[in-house]
Amino acid sequence: MPIDIPEVVIERLPVYARALALLATDGHAVISSQDLGAELGVTPAQIRKDLSYFGKFGKQGRGYNVRKLLDELYQILGLNREWSMALIGTGRLGRAILEYQGFGPQGFRFAAAFDADPASVGEMIGDLPIGDVANLEAALLNQPADVGIVAVPASEAQAVIDTLVRCGVKAILNYAPIAARHPADVHLRQIDPVLALQSMTYYLKRLPRATAP
Amino acid sequence: MPIDIPEVVIERLPVYARALALLATDGHAVISSQDLGAELGVTPAQIRKDLSYFGKFGKQGRGYNVRKLLDELYQILGLNREWSMALIGTGRLGRAILEYQGFGPQGFRFAAAFDADPASVGEMIGDLPIGDVANLEAALLNQPADVGIVAVPASEAQAVIDTLVRCGVKAILNYAPIAARHPADVHLRQIDPVLALQSMTYYLKRLPRATAP
Repeated sequence: MPIDIPEVVIERLPVYARALALLATDGHAVISSQDLGAELGVTPAQIRKDLSYFGKFGKQGRGYNVRKLLDELYQILGLNREWSMALIGTGRLGRAILEYQGFGPQGFRFAAAFDADPASVGEMIGDLPIGDVANLEAALLNQPADVGIVAVPASEAQAVIDTLVRCGVKAILNYAPIAARHPADVHLRQIDPVLALQSMTYYLKRLPRATAP
Repeated sequence: MPIDIPEVVIERLPVYARALALLATDGHAVISSQDLGAELGVTPAQIRKDLSYFGKFGKQGRGYNVRKLLDELYQILGLNREWSMALIGTGRLGRAILEYQGFGPQGFRFAAAFDADPASVGEMIGDLPIGDVANLEAALLNQPADVGIVAVPASEAQAVIDTLVRCGVKAILNYAPIAARHPADVHLRQIDPVLALQSMTYYLKRLPRATAP
């Protein structure tokens, strides 16, 4: 497998996988790159090019076998197994993340939770005890996590990320509104609603203002 | 201005703007597309091509004037003004969104909040009264919002999105884990932590497992 696949390609694969999973559920056996592209708002050429990094899929003019391509994408992305996650920050946001229904069905399991507030430490959320963030490093060295989820206030986030990095966590999902620093071999994704909003205002500003008469 | 700018280009502009804002804060007056690209993990050619959709910026070999490019991006994206937002769903997630510190400084202001729970309707969150989601349509027709933020359970999300669309809301940020349907002239961004995680497991699966010894 080539080792130099652009990160933007890797980021698109889960989007393809999700669309294919929906197609499979709806009983589609085959889909063309045209139809898959139309579904996702990308060009068929983009899809064919992205997939070409990983070998040959489908036959020219015959479309993709939905189930087969889906299985391949799951293999490529490592989605056919369970990943353990440590949540740091169990305030309003952290608890909303724990409640989120989307993780479990996709194999992402919360293995530990931490907070700095003495009033929260020791509390159980479901069957997950909240540990003291002061012991984060020791806890992670004892029981490693695949992924760290950072839901602490912005002022605390970089320190938590530094600790995760020190403990060997290689994948971090950061909800705090900071430009986080991390080594190149650690993957970090930012949940950033403001960037999402800012890419929509481009379209909004051409429209009449939405203000009351 | 050309009208056929790819949406992926528009989605990258806020990322450029954020990096430039940080550079400006750090006192940088000029930056090359090489250095900006290195900062963001994209090629300098990508940056030059993206910006070329909007005219000429910077002089060959001289780099970009940070402040000037930032101002232009703010103009292009419509970030030099205030946008009003309606939040639907004031459970744990909705309240975490209201608490998020990133919106206000970027001009995104909550103008209204709605919930279906009679126990919440009428409550004040800060100076924002929670309205009854049953009256969402009437409320939005009376006082339009630029953006709708959907933080209701998955089972309710499509109905809320349909209502927002009916009321003329053209930008929706959806936190519910559904593949939302919306007309082409309505822009919808999905806050999807699972997709973010799935694009990191590709890298994780090549590493030794993070399990306790």
